[in-house]
Amino acid sequence: MTCPGYQKLCKRSREVYLLRSIAGVLSWDLETYLPSKAVPYRADQLGYLEAKAHALFTEPWVGDWLEESEQFNFGQDSEQAANVREWRRSYNRATKIPVSLVEEFEKTRTVAREAWVGARAESRFSQFEPYLEKIVELTRRKADFWGFVESPYDALIEEYEPGITAREVKQILEELRGALVDLLREIPAESVPENFLDGHYPIPGQQALSREVAAAFGYDLAAGRIDTTVHPFATNLGPFDQRITTRYDEQRFEVCLYGIMHETGHALYEQGLSTSRVGLPSGEAVSLGIHESQSRLWENHVGRTAKFWHLWYPKACPHLPDLGRYSVTELVKGVQRVGPSFIRVEADEVTYDLHVLLRFDLELALIEGRLKVKDLPEAWNSRFQELFGLVVPDDRRGVLQDSHWSLGAIGYFPTYTLGNLNAAQLMFAAEKQVPGLSDQLAQGHYQPLLDWLRDNIHQHGRRYLPAELMRRATGQTTQTRYRIAYLRDKYLG
Amino acid sequence: MTCPGYQKLCKRSREVYLLRSIAGVLSWDLETYLPSKAVPYRADQLGYLEAKAHALFTEPWVGDWLEESEQFNFGQDSEQAANVREWRRSYNRATKIPVSLVEEFEKTRTVAREAWVGARAESRFSQFEPYLEKIVELTRRKADFWGFVESPYDALIEEYEPGITAREVKQILEELRGALVDLLREIPAESVPENFLDGHYPIPGQQALSREVAAAFGYDLAAGRIDTTVHPFATNLGPFDQRITTRYDEQRFEVCLYGIMHETGHALYEQGLSTSRVGLPSGEAVSLGIHESQSRLWENHVGRTAKFWHLWYPKACPHLPDLGRYSVTELVKGVQRVGPSFIRVEADEVTYDLHVLLRFDLELALIEGRLKVKDLPEAWNSRFQELFGLVVPDDRRGVLQDSHWSLGAIGYFPTYTLGNLNAAQLMFAAEKQVPGLSDQLAQGHYQPLLDWLRDNIHQHGRRYLPAELMRRATGQTTQTRYRIAYLRDKYLG
Repeated sequence: MTCPGYQKLCKRSREVYLLRSIAGVLSWDLETYLPSKAVPYRADQLGYLEAKAHALFTEPWVGDWLEESEQFNFGQDSEQAANVREWRRSYNRATKIPVSLVEEFEKTRTVAREAWVGARAESRFSQFEPYLEKIVELTRRKADFWGFVESPYDALIEEYEPGITAREVKQILEELRGALVDLLREIPAESVPENFLDGHYPIPGQQALSREVAAAFGYDLAAGRIDTTVHPFATNLGPFDQRITTRYDEQRFEVCLYGIMHETGHALYEQGLSTSRVGLPSGEAVSLGIHESQSRLWENHVGRTAKFWHLWYPKACPHLPDLGRYSVTELVKGVQRVGPSFIRVEADEVTYDLHVLLRFDLELALIEGRLKVKDLPEAWNSRFQELFGLVVPDDRRGVLQDSHWSLGAIGYFPTYTLGNLNAAQLMFAAEKQVPGLSDQLAQGHYQPLLDWLRDNIHQHGRRYLPAELMRRATGQTTQTRYRIAYLRDKYLG
Repeated sequence: MTCPGYQKLCKRSREVYLLRSIAGVLSWDLETYLPSKAVPYRADQLGYLEAKAHALFTEPWVGDWLEESEQFNFGQDSEQAANVREWRRSYNRATKIPVSLVEEFEKTRTVAREAWVGARAESRFSQFEPYLEKIVELTRRKADFWGFVESPYDALIEEYEPGITAREVKQILEELRGALVDLLREIPAESVPENFLDGHYPIPGQQALSREVAAAFGYDLAAGRIDTTVHPFATNLGPFDQRITTRYDEQRFEVCLYGIMHETGHALYEQGLSTSRVGLPSGEAVSLGIHESQSRLWENHVGRTAKFWHLWYPKACPHLPDLGRYSVTELVKGVQRVGPSFIRVEADEVTYDLHVLLRFDLELALIEGRLKVKDLPEAWNSRFQELFGLVVPDDRRGVLQDSHWSLGAIGYFPTYTLGNLNAAQLMFAAEKQVPGLSDQLAQGHYQPLLDWLRDNIHQHGRRYLPAELMRRATGQTTQTRYRIAYLRDKYLG
């Protein structure tokens, strides 16, 4: 016995996926190779594809197919039931927003992004202020349309991390803050200087080494590639096409090497999704907090370790002879250096989540109407000084550093911290469940870890909500204590 | 007074163009960077886009809009009338072919192309034979649906060169053959050996030089880019996005340099189309014979000359020091070397059209049912010996060398010769009309030539049929005599 509505949903879902995968190719090209004068038409092409995909998924009969599928007797825990649940969630969210608001939001984003680039270059928040005001206003209207119980922020974060609330995020970040501030106080002061590992690291050597590492971690380069961009990212362009990008700094090899490890983590997740479920929710990544756990795990738990460098030091030196000036111990000290800094994307593992906390507090206050956009820089600077003990020198290194708000992505930042927590918790579980994992990693046998992640995370796609997925993989929903224990052990142990 | 049907056609035409420009991005990526495992899904994406574009343009109301526009009183020579004429032509052709045949043809092409790659690698025509039989059969059915007066070939070539017939092509090629065979007999035998210019030409130097030349010719690299491929091409990905590709041979700098000049010619045409008419016939390239005239003109009339090398020799040597082993005179002799060879794409200017003649004769006979696919290799080899005086050593260097037939592109080859003829005829006209053109080119002032091509060819798009476009630019429709005079002057003068 089959359910025709479900079959129609599968077909429609695959078509929407195909359109979005086409947009993925165009976006990748936009970020990597597009000639500068071609940008405006690329925006038209992307807008067209997104509008088509949105229209296809919000047609009234999609709602009929959903109702038919919901009344059909799929097993409660079946893949089909999970697909129907996820389609329902996406459908309800998509159809709640009037098309006019979708359009206005898209247009506002495009100009706000441009304004942000200009404002950041000149380090003048006032240039960006009116655009951000509009973004916040439209975002609050979207939250109202989506609906929420406690905070409009709940409706926003749902877009990136289904099932979590602002209250839960707040609790997590507060817990972390206390622990991190304690830890920072305890870390010995005699640490290495900021430019400790600076040298001359030629790009071809960096490329060769980072490709070798990515391949060793399990990245299938016949189903992916590595290109150069200003802002590194990982992206899925369709089945067997998971690309990553990086940037090179000839003085600092860490920018590329750890960037590649991070993006490889994202790509490994996408390459581990089921190829027979392409275009269905059960074949898609479940949330940004889970996605970020994969990148953080490979970058920090695997790569930013003494184990990694004991193994890779002799392999890395021929590619980057300047590494020979350091002992393995010194290299490890360098890549594990901890210290307060202005820029989130360059922050060390210990202070990173404080950057997220700052942004979460501020965007929550903006969305709940407790903070005005015009007061944002002052709020940023005073809160930053409180958390890091540093005076923000200018807006560029302060409130203007991230693109997220200009892109209308309010509610996104907490997923970075969730990723950090999930990474530590998954690693803890893997260490218990995979026999001899630590020794395997020390010998460069990364497959057992990857297999465990494939089995426990990747293959499930969106079958379970993130909390349930974590519970199944680790026995608990996302906790702070694994990350705290990991950091204390790594930086004090 | 406006014509609503015409407005609707404009909108629809721009939408179809947008879809095809998206497909253009995906095809470019397929040829340059796509990971190998991602090819099958890319075929799905491209198939989807082409089907959508085809469906959008063949809906019945498009026919209604066309009729309304045809009855509207647009000036006979107006841009609007030209757009309506071209839409009508495309619409009639598209709607005459049943969708089932379109689908069958697309599928056959895909497998035939694969079969051709394998057959060519093993140099065994028999492996490709059944696929080509199918291609020929389906192509004949398409010609029947399209309709024709004299030869089914007329219906095919119309796809690439509107308004020309097999009879006219035959006459042109026969005229050429006589003249070329005479010329070959007259060219002094003491010419340079085949590998005369071989040396060590590092890729970065080739890249720098060829970019400099392309920019000097007028190629706007802020609206284009140069990438590496096995089979070089130029492609239009939308307004302000005309990309070219090349390949590098470290022994032979000519492969890249003259390849870049050729593709730059194509890109200059596309960059010269009206940006305010994007998506309308009047904003599109008119035919392959005109397109190829632009590439041939820059490659051969501008680049393969003593003038070019007198100017560029001192600029080229720092990039490619091995060039210093030759005098300018020797370099010119090397790049103007003439001699019979097996491979069309490597042929010199004088023998090139004989390669086209061979293919035209054979594909005409196939389509008119006078030659069986199974007899093709023998026909190729005997005709080749007749024309070139060489014995074809294997199918790879014979009947299997080109991909066109495997792709279902029968009727395409003559456009190469038309391009050669048009290039010589346009250059003759430009020399008469642009004061001091020859001196300008000698000094590297390429803008006056480009301006003349912009005014006389590029800006018109599809406003005039190719024959009329040539008549307006040069006073005559396409003639053989300008090319013959040009070759005699260049190689005997």
